[in-house]
Amino acid sequence: MLIPLEGEATLYISRMGSLQTSKEAKIGLKIREVASPEDFSRKLKTEAGRFKGLGFDDAPYSLISRLKKAGLRLAQHAEAVVKLRQVKEAWEIKAIRRAVRLAEEALAEASKYVKPGVSELEVAAAAERVLRLGGSEFYPFSTLVASGFRASYPHAEPTRKKIRDGEPVVVDLGAKVSGYCADLTRTFFAGKPGEAVAEAWRAVLEARDEAIRGIKPGMTGSEADRLARETLAKHGLEKFFIHGLGHGVGLEVHEAPSLSSAGKEKLVEGMVFTVEPGVYVAGRFGVRVEDTVLLEKGGVKLLTGKLGRELISLL
Amino acid sequence: MLIPLEGEATLYISRMGSLQTSKEAKIGLKIREVASPEDFSRKLKTEAGRFKGLGFDDAPYSLISRLKKAGLRLAQHAEAVVKLRQVKEAWEIKAIRRAVRLAEEALAEASKYVKPGVSELEVAAAAERVLRLGGSEFYPFSTLVASGFRASYPHAEPTRKKIRDGEPVVVDLGAKVSGYCADLTRTFFAGKPGEAVAEAWRAVLEARDEAIRGIKPGMTGSEADRLARETLAKHGLEKFFIHGLGHGVGLEVHEAPSLSSAGKEKLVEGMVFTVEPGVYVAGRFGVRVEDTVLLEKGGVKLLTGKLGRELISLL
Repeated sequence: MLIPLEGEATLYISRMGSLQTSKEAKIGLKIREVASPEDFSRKLKTEAGRFKGLGFDDAPYSLISRLKKAGLRLAQHAEAVVKLRQVKEAWEIKAIRRAVRLAEEALAEASKYVKPGVSELEVAAAAERVLRLGGSEFYPFSTLVASGFRASYPHAEPTRKKIRDGEPVVVDLGAKVSGYCADLTRTFFAGKPGEAVAEAWRAVLEARDEAIRGIKPGMTGSEADRLARETLAKHGLEKFFIHGLGHGVGLEVHEAPSLSSAGKEKLVEGMVFTVEPGVYVAGRFGVRVEDTVLLEKGGVKLLTGKLGRELISLL
Repeated sequence: MLIPLEGEATLYISRMGSLQTSKEAKIGLKIREVASPEDFSRKLKTEAGRFKGLGFDDAPYSLISRLKKAGLRLAQHAEAVVKLRQVKEAWEIKAIRRAVRLAEEALAEASKYVKPGVSELEVAAAAERVLRLGGSEFYPFSTLVASGFRASYPHAEPTRKKIRDGEPVVVDLGAKVSGYCADLTRTFFAGKPGEAVAEAWRAVLEARDEAIRGIKPGMTGSEADRLARETLAKHGLEKFFIHGLGHGVGLEVHEAPSLSSAGKEKLVEGMVFTVEPGVYVAGRFGVRVEDTVLLEKGGVKLLTGKLGRELISLL
């Protein structure tokens, strides 16, 4: 898609996709069919003559390299797009909120399957069914379901492993509505967990509350991360928090800003990001809670509704 | 992942992923944790000193650009990897066959939902449930369900649109097993279709049979494509076949070789690709049938079993 500073964008698309796009696109677009990669290079080059320069966001190296060989002058300007995308407009927030509400419903369904003898795959299937029937535009990422020792892997896709009595079950899933994502995690318990798990869970919830209460516009991503990290440190659990506190959410499920020790940028009003503290004890267990939130003038606003809040297990 | 010409590969991975990978990886690997993008550049640069040069397959432009700025000398050698990947070894074919069999089961389930009043979303949800419970590693792409006029869009994701009496319903889905994909399409009919649809369907099945009978090692991708295209031309339907006959299938659902008018490369034994003729009458209807097949010495071998063959509606 070629987006000029002024005027309508042009979408270059194969013959196979042009009819559907012309019927279903929700924004004004010039649509130009391209017959082959070479045809695309040619058409883009002709159009490029009208502009002083062309910047691109990001793309496979092979594509940029081919376009350069075809004589196009291109420069990467990802940062311009990143800046534009990380602060959301009202209509974008509305789409994300709808995605969050759908993700909540999927988590509520998943929670019904968390009991001894049910497999991780069954939990995922139940959640994805709700997402699909609710109109999620595919799944922004594979639903993660991790029970017992597998919950110590932060990104564990579901397996045939069956849930056992007392195990924590981490369910992390996303929905996409009008192109915008939501990303939520809840940890459910298949019966009463052991004391180590319960302690970790209470500490994670405390870290979540500290972060949600404490994050304000003007803080950097690393300062936000520290709020949760220091709370976990008080419980001696800091070393088990092996990822950042959160990441921006929008057209992609992971985008700027970064709420982590590397997050130098200031958080500002209108940013949407996750708050997701977790504790992972290698090979034993893991727990995590994750919300997609909006930063407003006064601080963090949850985009989850009543349902999402009720799904936070209090031991 | 750094793969030397001799010896073990090294996987660079975040702390968050290293435990799971060390437990679940099915091949021998050196695993090195990286703390940040900068740490990755640094560690890769140290390692790179051992080699005459580093080639890469493909990657985001931003990543290659960052590594080059860190002083690494890198050259793109995608073609070497493409060549290696497009001819499959026996264990790869075995994984693809398992994925094909799972995709067949999902299509069989989907077919039960093709009746008037059922939405496209419900068909997709039913199919994806079978894929998920059967252990597909997520979904290689969104299940496509396109009914009636929407079937004239070759890549239509499912919507709330309800199937109507006599409509064709194109269901295109994939499964992934041990990292390898399958890609299958069937067209089902919600009752007796109109004569134009029935004629197009019979022509598509004839084009499929011609291609499957006619494709032999030594042919180019464009010659293979022509087998189907000429059959459709006999029925005056060539202009409605708006995409290539097929594409390679493997670790990715779309890879080399290309069976299309642009396919200059020779097809050889051990290649796995799709054969997927279709007819799309803009805004009115569409029909397509797609198999994932293996090229053997004597010609094309279907990887679908009895179930997949029985799912081809004969009018």
